[in-house]
Amino acid sequence: MAQKEGFCDLGFAKLDLNRKMRRGFPEVIYCCGKTVEHIKKISNGLIDKRQDLLLTKLEKKTFVYLKRSIPKLKYNALAKIGYYLHNPRISRRGLIAVICAGTADIPIAEEAAQTAEIMGNRVLKFYDVGVAGVHRLMHYIEEIRKSNVIIVVAGMEGALASLVSGLVAAPVIAVPTSCGYGANFSGLAALLTMLNGCSPGVAVVNIDNGFGAGYFASLISK
Amino acid sequence: MAQKEGFCDLGFAKLDLNRKMRRGFPEVIYCCGKTVEHIKKISNGLIDKRQDLLLTKLEKKTFVYLKRSIPKLKYNALAKIGYYLHNPRISRRGLIAVICAGTADIPIAEEAAQTAEIMGNRVLKFYDVGVAGVHRLMHYIEEIRKSNVIIVVAGMEGALASLVSGLVAAPVIAVPTSCGYGANFSGLAALLTMLNGCSPGVAVVNIDNGFGAGYFASLISK
Amino acid sequence: MAQKEGFCDLGFAKLDLNRKMRRGFPEVIYCCGKTVEHIKKISNGLIDKRQDLLLTKLEKKTFVYLKRSIPKLKYNALAKIGYYLHNPRISRRGLIAVICAGTADIPIAEEAAQTAEIMGNRVLKFYDVGVAGVHRLMHYIEEIRKSNVIIVVAGMEGALASLVSGLVAAPVIAVPTSCGYGANFSGLAALLTMLNGCSPGVAVVNIDNGFGAGYFASLISK
Amino acid sequence: MAQKEGFCDLGFAKLDLNRKMRRGFPEVIYCCGKTVEHIKKISNGLIDKRQDLLLTKLEKKTFVYLKRSIPKLKYNALAKIGYYLHNPRISRRGLIAVICAGTADIPIAEEAAQTAEIMGNRVLKFYDVGVAGVHRLMHYIEEIRKSNVIIVVAGMEGALASLVSGLVAAPVIAVPTSCGYGANFSGLAALLTMLNGCSPGVAVVNIDNGFGAGYFASLISK
Amino acid sequence: MAQKEGFCDLGFAKLDLNRKMRRGFPEVIYCCGKTVEHIKKISNGLIDKRQDLLLTKLEKKTFVYLKRSIPKLKYNALAKIGYYLHNPRISRRGLIAVICAGTADIPIAEEAAQTAEIMGNRVLKFYDVGVAGVHRLMHYIEEIRKSNVIIVVAGMEGALASLVSGLVAAPVIAVPTSCGYGANFSGLAALLTMLNGCSPGVAVVNIDNGFGAGYFASLISK
Amino acid sequence: MAQKEGFCDLGFAKLDLNRKMRRGFPEVIYCCGKTVEHIKKISNGLIDKRQDLLLTKLEKKTFVYLKRSIPKLKYNALAKIGYYLHNPRISRRGLIAVICAGTADIPIAEEAAQTAEIMGNRVLKFYDVGVAGVHRLMHYIEEIRKSNVIIVVAGMEGALASLVSGLVAAPVIAVPTSCGYGANFSGLAALLTMLNGCSPGVAVVNIDNGFGAGYFASLISK
Amino acid sequence: MAQKEGFCDLGFAKLDLNRKMRRGFPEVIYCCGKTVEHIKKISNGLIDKRQDLLLTKLEKKTFVYLKRSIPKLKYNALAKIGYYLHNPRISRRGLIAVICAGTADIPIAEEAAQTAEIMGNRVLKFYDVGVAGVHRLMHYIEEIRKSNVIIVVAGMEGALASLVSGLVAAPVIAVPTSCGYGANFSGLAALLTMLNGCSPGVAVVNIDNGFGAGYFASLISK
Amino acid sequence: MAQKEGFCDLGFAKLDLNRKMRRGFPEVIYCCGKTVEHIKKISNGLIDKRQDLLLTKLEKKTFVYLKRSIPKLKYNALAKIGYYLHNPRISRRGLIAVICAGTADIPIAEEAAQTAEIMGNRVLKFYDVGVAGVHRLMHYIEEIRKSNVIIVVAGMEGALASLVSGLVAAPVIAVPTSCGYGANFSGLAALLTMLNGCSPGVAVVNIDNGFGAGYFASLISK
Repeated sequence: MAQKEGFCDLGFAKLDLNRKMRRGFPEVIYCCGKTVEHIKKISNGLIDKRQDLLLTKLEKKTFVYLKRSIPKLKYNALAKIGYYLHNPRISRRGLIAVICAGTADIPIAEEAAQTAEIMGNRVLKFYDVGVAGVHRLMHYIEEIRKSNVIIVVAGMEGALASLVSGLVAAPVIAVPTSCGYGANFSGLAALLTMLNGCSPGVAVVNIDNGFGAGYFASLISK
Repeated sequence: MAQKEGFCDLGFAKLDLNRKMRRGFPEVIYCCGKTVEHIKKISNGLIDKRQDLLLTKLEKKTFVYLKRSIPKLKYNALAKIGYYLHNPRISRRGLIAVICAGTADIPIAEEAAQTAEIMGNRVLKFYDVGVAGVHRLMHYIEEIRKSNVIIVVAGMEGALASLVSGLVAAPVIAVPTSCGYGANFSGLAALLTMLNGCSPGVAVVNIDNGFGAGYFASLISK
Repeated sequence: MAQKEGFCDLGFAKLDLNRKMRRGFPEVIYCCGKTVEHIKKISNGLIDKRQDLLLTKLEKKTFVYLKRSIPKLKYNALAKIGYYLHNPRISRRGLIAVICAGTADIPIAEEAAQTAEIMGNRVLKFYDVGVAGVHRLMHYIEEIRKSNVIIVVAGMEGALASLVSGLVAAPVIAVPTSCGYGANFSGLAALLTMLNGCSPGVAVVNIDNGFGAGYFASLISK
Repeated sequence: MAQKEGFCDLGFAKLDLNRKMRRGFPEVIYCCGKTVEHIKKISNGLIDKRQDLLLTKLEKKTFVYLKRSIPKLKYNALAKIGYYLHNPRISRRGLIAVICAGTADIPIAEEAAQTAEIMGNRVLKFYDVGVAGVHRLMHYIEEIRKSNVIIVVAGMEGALASLVSGLVAAPVIAVPTSCGYGANFSGLAALLTMLNGCSPGVAVVNIDNGFGAGYFASLISK
Repeated sequence: MAQKEGFCDLGFAKLDLNRKMRRGFPEVIYCCGKTVEHIKKISNGLIDKRQDLLLTKLEKKTFVYLKRSIPKLKYNALAKIGYYLHNPRISRRGLIAVICAGTADIPIAEEAAQTAEIMGNRVLKFYDVGVAGVHRLMHYIEEIRKSNVIIVVAGMEGALASLVSGLVAAPVIAVPTSCGYGANFSGLAALLTMLNGCSPGVAVVNIDNGFGAGYFASLISK
Repeated sequence: MAQKEGFCDLGFAKLDLNRKMRRGFPEVIYCCGKTVEHIKKISNGLIDKRQDLLLTKLEKKTFVYLKRSIPKLKYNALAKIGYYLHNPRISRRGLIAVICAGTADIPIAEEAAQTAEIMGNRVLKFYDVGVAGVHRLMHYIEEIRKSNVIIVVAGMEGALASLVSGLVAAPVIAVPTSCGYGANFSGLAALLTMLNGCSPGVAVVNIDNGFGAGYFASLISK
Repeated sequence: MAQKEGFCDLGFAKLDLNRKMRRGFPEVIYCCGKTVEHIKKISNGLIDKRQDLLLTKLEKKTFVYLKRSIPKLKYNALAKIGYYLHNPRISRRGLIAVICAGTADIPIAEEAAQTAEIMGNRVLKFYDVGVAGVHRLMHYIEEIRKSNVIIVVAGMEGALASLVSGLVAAPVIAVPTSCGYGANFSGLAALLTMLNGCSPGVAVVNIDNGFGAGYFASLISK
Repeated sequence: MAQKEGFCDLGFAKLDLNRKMRRGFPEVIYCCGKTVEHIKKISNGLIDKRQDLLLTKLEKKTFVYLKRSIPKLKYNALAKIGYYLHNPRISRRGLIAVICAGTADIPIAEEAAQTAEIMGNRVLKFYDVGVAGVHRLMHYIEEIRKSNVIIVVAGMEGALASLVSGLVAAPVIAVPTSCGYGANFSGLAALLTMLNGCSPGVAVVNIDNGFGAGYFASLISK
């Protein structure tokens, strides 16, 4: 493990140690496609350097494996997020509403919510309020309007993002999910819906990227 | 012009003369890609056989050309529909609501409305009530609920179809339009939205196919 | 379980309790992507509120799990539909023909037929009458013409919808299936075929969406 | 113009002079994307070498330009084919049926028919017999069955190829056309339909490739 | 099992009994997506009606299951074809060359070859002669030229079809395979290559459709 | 012009009059696909109701036409934005950096910048600093870091958004442009790049949607 | 025009002045999507800084406009390349073969060839040697083998790249062109062919990117 | 095993024995889609003919199977490459830098590196230096600049290739990987990014084609 200027060289990986200073939050580990050994070494490397640890798309069995060497590692199974914070943050940021259309969208909504909480935000959740029964959304709209930022998570046709945006003054971050079948083409339908919204005030992240939405929301929630 | 069993042979075209008997409405002429001479000959052939005439996607200059030999031909320029009915129909069918999201969707909405009227339906129009300002739709929702069938025409993200469907008991026919830009991919975004709607009770026709929606609506509006 | 105006809040889900009043049929549970615990809680919630229960894309093992706590739950394994009706409906609606092109399309055809029956329709089934041997369809065409609505289920090239539509006066609901291989692209080929039909009177639902077709057919079968 | 073994080098082009010997028909000039000067030089080069001349997708104005230096050049404006045969062929090959679905498909059908005739085949044409009125096709089916090869040209949903194939013993060559709009995606819908046909005995050429169909039909029409 | 005019009604299936008379070869069973019970009943139905039996994309375990009740059923494991012919055909048709680009294309090539043989053709196989080492193809080109029809099976970029076509006078049937990775998009790359060939005399069947190629080849091999 | 609750009914259009109250900014007119008469009537309707006017994708000739009846209308030709503000806003919001990769991206960058300025923000522009010469971006990076929000506009491969995001703490709004050719597929390449960025803190708007980026930036620039 | 470290700031553009030192060749101007004023200012800026000038995809009328203020500007109309070199390079680099499949591919082949020559290479051209008549390629293969690098330009199915690669030891740079129609999807077919080549030793550039191929070839031709 | 001119005929395979002479490196075995028996026979055939052996995309269990009959076979598990060289090469070629963006890209980077080493090159590896923390790349840039050729391996948005190219004079070979999720569409996003790079000097190979990149790099590394 060689110390370089602003990063730490593990050979197969270069830990970005000045990311927190530069960007406000340390490097985050996206676990898909990485070997468990690599994830473990990177995690330990970051902890050694006193970085907060956040692992996304972390499968349960990988968490169990990591837990042995990092006993303080926590896990949100629904969100597939593992984390270990040296100094838990006090909620000094704003209020973020996380809204999802259907119950099948909950894992991605939880990923967004958990990320936002780890980054020091208060989060309110409004799940299963899709356009098929719009009175459910309307019931909570005043509460939603109190948020600084709104994250809308929806699969299938993804129409909820446009609808919410038309009702609020706060910025809306739209997260398409791969939930659905047939001509949803693994989330493409919801993605296109959200990109083409007729209502301004919406920006979009990748399909199933709950983490990215929570992170972006945190940047703008002050 | 040779008379055959159930059709009339013009050589380059075979006029389906028993379509009205078989399907309830005579053959309709889709004008794109046909030469003006072909359109003229088919039109005259149908009139000779005492068929009602309906021409869709009819450009104005083609209409002007046809008008010379078919003086009674009428034209709805916004809908790009030409027609000549031997016996104008009395509205004996049901009430059809034609709803569109934005003013750029009006040509396709008009094509649907004009088709439905020609086929003997009463039509109510609710234009520019997209999800960006949902109170506009809500203002008319009781009136809309009185219809037997609802046609929703929308481009961009096409979210209006899902929203309307969630609020009504009547069947919804969704027409995606090519209105929009960028990642709408000439109507693909709205098409996918409408196919993936989380709210049941919606069926979809081709992009910009106002005629098809009006025709289908008429079949089910009794 | 908190009672709200028009819905019931389970936290992770909001049961739309006035959907039947508003739309004529209660909320339906699409099972893909939901955890079995969520499906169970939603099912029990709906039953508690005396709603009829309809579960689509329900895997057999999930059904077995649910059956323990909902002994009256019924299951159509071919259609992957679970249901429990408080008051079985008397067939007061019209007659719906469900036609499919090949035997591999039967599961989706059954989903459509079962849905239509649950919603109170009489259903006639015409399976394996695809265009490769058109005399099979012609043999039944008079019987098919007696239906109020026709559902055509087809994978591969999906040509059957256009063919049927050209022969009947009733509206045709086309359901593309993902059956096929290679350049069918999981149902895209059949979907495009059905959307581009040269014969009017056809509307389309999502790939493999037998439920949506049965539901829509029921709305218009009176 | 340098003579090489089996070809002639014009610098910008290499005329394949032994193609007729090798393949049974000389090199054909596809005109799109070529400058008129290049087309002229290639045409003159082939004539000098006593090759029969066939130019496809030839615009009228380019034909007029070529006609000045090649007075014997003939032109089929509908098919956009120019040709000049040193020894017109006597029809010694088989009978080819060219069927098209709608009048907008005629230009491509004519391209196929003209190609087949130039290559020495007898051609029968059956235009405008699409699936919207299937009795028109049925009226001619016995006549069609007498052909050695059948070319089916169709745009929109392209269902005609499957239907015809199911009714005949002869091989069917399917030509998708770009005729249509919206979700036909410039011929993609018809192409996919034809590739996924449930009825065997069909092979497909490129969208709008009437020439390729006529050429292939000629190869197998003996 | 109800006997109808030209077919036999099993309820879930309609066996097309006059297909052999009409098209020259009996109905073929495509096994994907069908339940093993359905395959068994259809197979037995056809045998009862003294039809030759041909099953494509037949998995080994399904064959083993069928073998119990149809002891004479044969199986080509590489081609995934099962068959049972009442009167094995004498090779009275022409000679078909089956060429494939790489060894991974062999299963589809075998499907084509086996189909052609069952339909009474002599078949010559030239495997692994792709464009990466073109002298291999050239070594056999004179032998290939003796065939009446040529089937070219290729995955990856599928360039072999164009190359072969440019060297021969016989018609070429091109079969794209899904063999490859990345930007081959499960056979799309090879399919597009084959559709866009600059060399005429090629027609294309669906990705991995060896059966369709063998069938079509047999129709034209006389 | 009928006054309704919260909107004004022009028949073909429903002006959303409470949008400013509800969302903080009045309804904006997207001009593509609308007739000039419709644009004029909507503009006059909004001015009558004392709404600020903002027209996007406004062609110069349409501007000239509108200018006759709305003399105070201003026009930014590069941005294709027309506007008329009753009370020009004092810059009370934050600082927004608008960065673009190449000079061909300037029209969309200007659309974003002009929108942000109209909404009361200070804007700094950094044009032509794409990744081909990264020292140009680095030269300005400290200045960029002083912004509250960063808009990155890029066509072709769109890599600039990821690069900028990795260097700053502020949120980045990425705007793909259709600038480029070939496999950029009219902006799809840049869109996908921006959605898949490995660096968090980026959200994306539609291709060429400079307005949407400026609007969203304004919502979060406080 | 402000001088910065390594670049020159024109406001709307930042001229990368140390690109030659850093990369071996100065900044090149891609003209599509730029205004003529911008092109002129950038050109003059680069000349002022004694940079060699290379403009790609330069329309003739823009060239004529530029020629007035830059009299020494040269233009290759076929390649759409404008250039002005302060010190014409002596051919000190290697030999590059530019091969194209058909005459419609010549503009892109010329763009590659002209670029390579400007960068100081000797270029040999082999045009119209596509796979439809492979003996033309074979006639020149020994000459081609003497090159250090080979550029293959092909539209339609693009098979030539694989074929050439299989015959030579030199690296092959493949340039797909948009030449063709139908299922070539504006060059996508050729692009996929070239990416999936079964023969190693090929690398690919963007559709119609003759410049990129010539540039890359020059980097490796030593 | 029949010896032919320049190849060896195994029936199912034709071993290209003069590939080394013709192309500088013997035939390489791509293992996907081949049966283990075929791989074994081809391997043994090549060894018998004293060819060096290189197997790509070789699964571990297949390696274990082959090892029994080819005891000298070596295996790089990360790269999935098996090899057996008769005369290990001495590094007489140039220096190749293999750079990858993230740790999930390492398998493809290793495939490229291993291939280049087998072909006699020295390789330097720079892993996990993606654009999210660009100082990591900058730390090594001088070292990278010493290479003759640079291979850049990146998934997700693939922006690293453009960035590296803008900083160096050496040619860059870009390898998109399928690493990522959602709108990366299995590597399509990175592929398009790399094809559309605004920085010249980049050529692209297929998604996940590390071997192709290593091979091409070796051809140009002298």
